[in-house]
Amino acid sequence: MRIIGIDPGSKVTGYGIVEQMKHQLRHVASGRVVSPSGIPFHDRLKNIYTELGKVIACHAPEAMAVEDLFIARNVQSALKLGHARGVAMLAGLNAELVIAEYSPMEVKKALVGYGRAQKEQVQEMVRILLSLAEPPESNTADALAVAICHLHWCQGVGKVSPRSSL
Amino acid sequence: MRIIGIDPGSKVTGYGIVEQMKHQLRHVASGRVVSPSGIPFHDRLKNIYTELGKVIACHAPEAMAVEDLFIARNVQSALKLGHARGVAMLAGLNAELVIAEYSPMEVKKALVGYGRAQKEQVQEMVRILLSLAEPPESNTADALAVAICHLHWCQGVGKVSPRSSL
Repeated sequence: MRIIGIDPGSKVTGYGIVEQMKHQLRHVASGRVVSPSGIPFHDRLKNIYTELGKVIACHAPEAMAVEDLFIARNVQSALKLGHARGVAMLAGLNAELVIAEYSPMEVKKALVGYGRAQKEQVQEMVRILLSLAEPPESNTADALAVAICHLHWCQGVGKVSPRSSL
Repeated sequence: MRIIGIDPGSKVTGYGIVEQMKHQLRHVASGRVVSPSGIPFHDRLKNIYTELGKVIACHAPEAMAVEDLFIARNVQSALKLGHARGVAMLAGLNAELVIAEYSPMEVKKALVGYGRAQKEQVQEMVRILLSLAEPPESNTADALAVAICHLHWCQGVGKVSPRSSL
């Protein structure tokens, strides 16, 4: 089973594709969609949608896992995050992917066993689980982490369950 | 010139297409994308994107005008609105439309001449400007209003200018 995890953001959107074969997790691909600074906001949205669409077409995951966004500094930040998350999910929906949503706490609990784990602990656990030489940078690690969280759930390993609505 | 105006919302998204021929405004089409209650949030997003895509393909507007969303009750509302607005804009962007954004105050000023006009005043002015028999319902009126606002700006009638980013 192959999952794309997404860490959405209007400036940087992380993505990570993880495959499970029997009991082995495998890193397929990961990276970031970075919108050039200074381009209009709606061009950033199109960039996220287009680039994620290419990644999905290239690696053919079966489902998309996305973090819930319950945390935003203020209404304006929430609006921007909402736009980015909406178009990222649409890239998955238009490729007929199932969408699963997990809270940041559920992702941390699934990976580290502790819902309030530090960012560095998540990065290190992603490195260990995927046998990477170095911990991935933060956005990529978060995207890989939510993909792993969903794979755990699919295998009945995790104790969290995905949602399908805000 | 033909413009589609959008009043985005995760439950109800209003749209209105207005054409300007010389000094005459003409109502081309308008309506609402209503997501059935109880369907998952991401299916509502896909519904907005798909239905607006059909409307755009059918009526071929040259540009999309959308209200800024600076007003939201709280972070959670802002997140939901952001998702809806993002996918609505993407429907325009993927059809190669220019996107113009106006604040609610700018729209009211362009239509009624007063930035704090009541909802009913906007509905009535839309009715008069488009020679409709009845004032349109609220979401549709707001969508038609932002389309008219953009046409005013294109004709140099309005005093407001569109933005292209949040």
